[in-house]
Amino acid sequence: MTPIIIRCIYSVFFLCVAMAFSLVVSIPNLSSSTAGICTRRRRFFLPSSHLLLNPSLSLPSDRSSPFPFPEASILPNSWRRAGARAGSITFSLSSRPEYIPNRIPDPNYVRIFDTTLRDGEQSPGATMTSNEKLVVARHLSRLGVDIIEAGFPASSPDDLDAVRSIAIEVGNQPLGEDGHVPVICGLSRCNKKDIDAAWEAVRHAKKPRVHTFIATSEIHMKHKLRKTREEVVSIARDMVAYAKSLGCQDIEFSPEDAGRSDREFLYHVLTEVIKAGATTLNIPDTVGYTLPSEFGKLIADLKANTPGIENVIISTHCQNDLGLATANTLAGAYAGARQLEVTVNGIGERAGNASLEEVVIAIKCRQELLGGLYTGINTKQIVMASKMVAEYTGLFVQPHKAIVGTNAFAHESGIHQDGMLKHKGTYEIISPEDIGLTRANESGIVLGKLSGRHALRSRLLEFGYDIDGKELDDVFKRFKEVAEKKKRISDEDLEALISDEIFQPRVIWSLGELQVTCGTLGLSTATVKLMSSDGEERIACSIGTGPVDAAYKAIDSIVKVPAVLKEYAMNAVTEGIDAIATTRVVIGGDETHTSTHALTGKAICRTFSGSGAAMDIVVSSVRAYISALNKMLGFVSAMKASEDTPKKHNVSS
Amino acid sequence: MTPIIIRCIYSVFFLCVAMAFSLVVSIPNLSSSTAGICTRRRRFFLPSSHLLLNPSLSLPSDRSSPFPFPEASILPNSWRRAGARAGSITFSLSSRPEYIPNRIPDPNYVRIFDTTLRDGEQSPGATMTSNEKLVVARHLSRLGVDIIEAGFPASSPDDLDAVRSIAIEVGNQPLGEDGHVPVICGLSRCNKKDIDAAWEAVRHAKKPRVHTFIATSEIHMKHKLRKTREEVVSIARDMVAYAKSLGCQDIEFSPEDAGRSDREFLYHVLTEVIKAGATTLNIPDTVGYTLPSEFGKLIADLKANTPGIENVIISTHCQNDLGLATANTLAGAYAGARQLEVTVNGIGERAGNASLEEVVIAIKCRQELLGGLYTGINTKQIVMASKMVAEYTGLFVQPHKAIVGTNAFAHESGIHQDGMLKHKGTYEIISPEDIGLTRANESGIVLGKLSGRHALRSRLLEFGYDIDGKELDDVFKRFKEVAEKKKRISDEDLEALISDEIFQPRVIWSLGELQVTCGTLGLSTATVKLMSSDGEERIACSIGTGPVDAAYKAIDSIVKVPAVLKEYAMNAVTEGIDAIATTRVVIGGDETHTSTHALTGKAICRTFSGSGAAMDIVVSSVRAYISALNKMLGFVSAMKASEDTPKKHNVSS
Repeated sequence: MTPIIIRCIYSVFFLCVAMAFSLVVSIPNLSSSTAGICTRRRRFFLPSSHLLLNPSLSLPSDRSSPFPFPEASILPNSWRRAGARAGSITFSLSSRPEYIPNRIPDPNYVRIFDTTLRDGEQSPGATMTSNEKLVVARHLSRLGVDIIEAGFPASSPDDLDAVRSIAIEVGNQPLGEDGHVPVICGLSRCNKKDIDAAWEAVRHAKKPRVHTFIATSEIHMKHKLRKTREEVVSIARDMVAYAKSLGCQDIEFSPEDAGRSDREFLYHVLTEVIKAGATTLNIPDTVGYTLPSEFGKLIADLKANTPGIENVIISTHCQNDLGLATANTLAGAYAGARQLEVTVNGIGERAGNASLEEVVIAIKCRQELLGGLYTGINTKQIVMASKMVAEYTGLFVQPHKAIVGTNAFAHESGIHQDGMLKHKGTYEIISPEDIGLTRANESGIVLGKLSGRHALRSRLLEFGYDIDGKELDDVFKRFKEVAEKKKRISDEDLEALISDEIFQPRVIWSLGELQVTCGTLGLSTATVKLMSSDGEERIACSIGTGPVDAAYKAIDSIVKVPAVLKEYAMNAVTEGIDAIATTRVVIGGDETHTSTHALTGKAICRTFSGSGAAMDIVVSSVRAYISALNKMLGFVSAMKASEDTPKKHNVSS
Repeated sequence: MTPIIIRCIYSVFFLCVAMAFSLVVSIPNLSSSTAGICTRRRRFFLPSSHLLLNPSLSLPSDRSSPFPFPEASILPNSWRRAGARAGSITFSLSSRPEYIPNRIPDPNYVRIFDTTLRDGEQSPGATMTSNEKLVVARHLSRLGVDIIEAGFPASSPDDLDAVRSIAIEVGNQPLGEDGHVPVICGLSRCNKKDIDAAWEAVRHAKKPRVHTFIATSEIHMKHKLRKTREEVVSIARDMVAYAKSLGCQDIEFSPEDAGRSDREFLYHVLTEVIKAGATTLNIPDTVGYTLPSEFGKLIADLKANTPGIENVIISTHCQNDLGLATANTLAGAYAGARQLEVTVNGIGERAGNASLEEVVIAIKCRQELLGGLYTGINTKQIVMASKMVAEYTGLFVQPHKAIVGTNAFAHESGIHQDGMLKHKGTYEIISPEDIGLTRANESGIVLGKLSGRHALRSRLLEFGYDIDGKELDDVFKRFKEVAEKKKRISDEDLEALISDEIFQPRVIWSLGELQVTCGTLGLSTATVKLMSSDGEERIACSIGTGPVDAAYKAIDSIVKVPAVLKEYAMNAVTEGIDAIATTRVVIGGDETHTSTHALTGKAICRTFSGSGAAMDIVVSSVRAYISALNKMLGFVSAMKASEDTPKKHNVSS
């Protein structure tokens, strides 16, 4: 009851503040301003009063359809919401309702379920190490995600370990500003072995969840499962009950390919799994082909026709094949879904999933039209989450990506150089600071070659990297090397160095020295000295078609594992020709490096990404290749280790 | 009348083919297939019969709201549409209705207005040379775009020249399969000088159009224009009339920031410009913040309340700030817009515009639910358009971008290795071939070091590059250099070479020789020999923090113009360490390199991109830098040339 009382107090408080503020703001200013547009200052105090004062924004009034939006609420309600929302930003501690698996105390609160580490990580080349996954999970917790789907534990022993580490650490320790601990979720197909693995991985968390799924569309049941409708219902019901029998109180069920499933059959399956103990029902648009109204209608139909659905949470999971995932997700939320499955940067197989940042910011900016919905996301952590995921998965973000693209807030220079600056609302609907975007030259702190270990550590802490001891020594050494050559070390430079230095896979080989000659003459030659983890030094030289070709061939002659370069990309971190260059490579090995694909159940030949940073592009390229090789060698040894361990679970259904 | 008769014949023919085919396909296959999902074979023959035979797809039945979609049409109509649409793919000659500025003979036909060369090109770093713009315009014509917005002629003399060249060539010569010639459009603010420049640029085209705009929202009128409502109406009316007085019969008018304009005022402005002669009314969501239903409602309101609007075409222009541009555009089309403004890859300022490929493919895939709409786009040209625009603008596409991302059709390997191959519909809603994606190893033709000039020319012709003489010699020379080092030359390799060789800006400096030494020792040294266009050879050497830094400094010491490296990125074109690497750089000069921004009217400091390709990453980097320098030097000399020309037009309003 206490949170409710606190919220009431805040509501009254904010109502007073909003009223006082509205008297201070001059009337002309109000009438010319932008209703429904969330420039930073206005969003905190005047969202709905704006809407009523500004005659220029007409709202659709049709309530009968799934995705149109209602008229502005009457004044008192709007003001109450304005207060509640301001609370969710300024005092986020009080705004997130208590977590109960099958029920949300506040009907306007929408849970954000992040599946970057599961759906995102299974996309081509996006393989992350356990350590990288843990780092991302920590940040997702800081971001305020309600549920982290940490992986698909049955897919490989490595994935089970990763989910378990996340459950143990991130699932128990509050990291965000509001002190909440996210639910840790593991995916499983509808069989005992998968569910056992998922439960084993997540059960250490304070709030563990098992997410199980089975296809319910005719095409999938017939060709993939080769099962009848009755068999599918029976399996779904039994496996949800099985998860519950293990002690799991928070069970999510997904009817795969729901968008193409027979509606009546879907009601039937869902009714049965609710009876068996499911607390969240997730509705995936697996092939990403629905239109917003259509998907909204699906959610509304399920809500209206599934007995018992009022006692569980409805969730959306929209793929982006037609570029409509964000719109579909919002349509689902408007129609009654209170959990939205998303990924950071919208990554995922094919065209990816609905992107966390687009969904969250749209809800924040257009709350009035979405029936007052709100989330518990700390939007100031969005930029960091975006950079981290792009870096670790190798799935970069295009410059014109909404919210997190490098151009999303950029105008050709010259625009803001006159009086327009005072009226940012003319072309900007969210402010860069709202998503945590601060430019290097605005931060005030710039490190240089005289900066010491302590100054570096403080700056890294501000980024959220809490390192010390050997790790700090290593970063400091690299920092000094760069500082010798470059006057000012920017935040971007630091981030490149730290991710190159700290978040590397277990080191099996490391770079000693490199020497290269190349040019238009075409006789590129590279000499490489590598050190193995047991201290052995090996030197080799090779010629090649270019310096990278030559260096990689020299490395291959030392490491001697089959590796094919699949992708290679390099970016300068900052402006100027003395910038640090980061290289990202993706390599594939032979066909023994497999894990299991969640949806198809087939073995996937994994690929491995590596990144490197240096001021010399050839050195940067070599570091990236060694990093990817280490990741691949680590995966192989983890596979071997698990094969030597006796099998513990039986396969069923 | 003839095209209508031909369409009727085709409709009957396809009805027969479809009926015959439906008898051949076995019934189980039909019931398990995917209604509304367009795998290639099905789309041609069975789209709507599918919809009726497959019970698993429920459709929303609400017709009252702006963006929900109607029930499937009754059988005969659906079949007629199926025939008509099959015709639009197989016999596209017959499917595009005759072009009349203010009217479309077929109410279901939607015009695609591409503004890649105007809205896209004004985004940061995306500056294209006149030659690049012409090449893109040619391809847009092949793609079947109805209207090409070729630029903003008043922004700079260079832009006027570019639009004029496009009007003269692309605006007169049919290039696409159906022999149509696109409308060439030039943007202008509402003043005589801009309109004069736009008309001067486009008037050479067979179908010229002037597009003029003025802001109509309170915030823009007050702070940007500093004009009253009455003044704005009067300017809009007068300037549309002025464009008409010049002889322009095809006039588009946009009320900028329509989404935030007072609805009644909008009706009034639009009524007046219709009276003055406007034939298309474009409704921009300038700040990209509307939700689909809201935008659909805006279009529906305008359609219902603007006197005379039945005699003009309504158009949408949606920005993507919340990731909703595609959904908003579709909502606009469903509500009655029959022109959709889009850009290839969705590029544009901030988060860009609605992307051509997403809008077109969504209309194609979900035609049944969108009331039977169709476009004249030849989707097989989409991939080429996407690559070309990414290459020339430097705005790359993220791997998980819908439709054109490199992962859009990729699954982790292993998935299609069993019986699932026969049922692609399980996870794929469009086929790669539909958008022109053929993989190198499927093409059958692979070039190698024994391939001659003729084989190379044939392959390039297949790509759409018709070159001969000196250009072919240059490409062939580069081709042989690569073939010496690499066994098989893939299509991607060839494309990298050709764009590096042919579509360069006017050559002022070119690379002679380069020699580099670098490595972990940190004493990178580069020696560069450049040749100027008048035959002079210059050699310089420099040290640097890395090989690129050293080489760029050596070049700077020869070229001696102020240039700042803004962005640097490199990608390997194909798999394997002997791949060709393409480098993309963006540089900025001093503040004299300006053009005028369309919306703000402010001077923009332009930046210049350059690309280079080579097997050696350092050589590739150097080529890119020289290319960008040449582009910048060319822009400066064009500016100077125009300043020497006496001014011809007066500024008004």
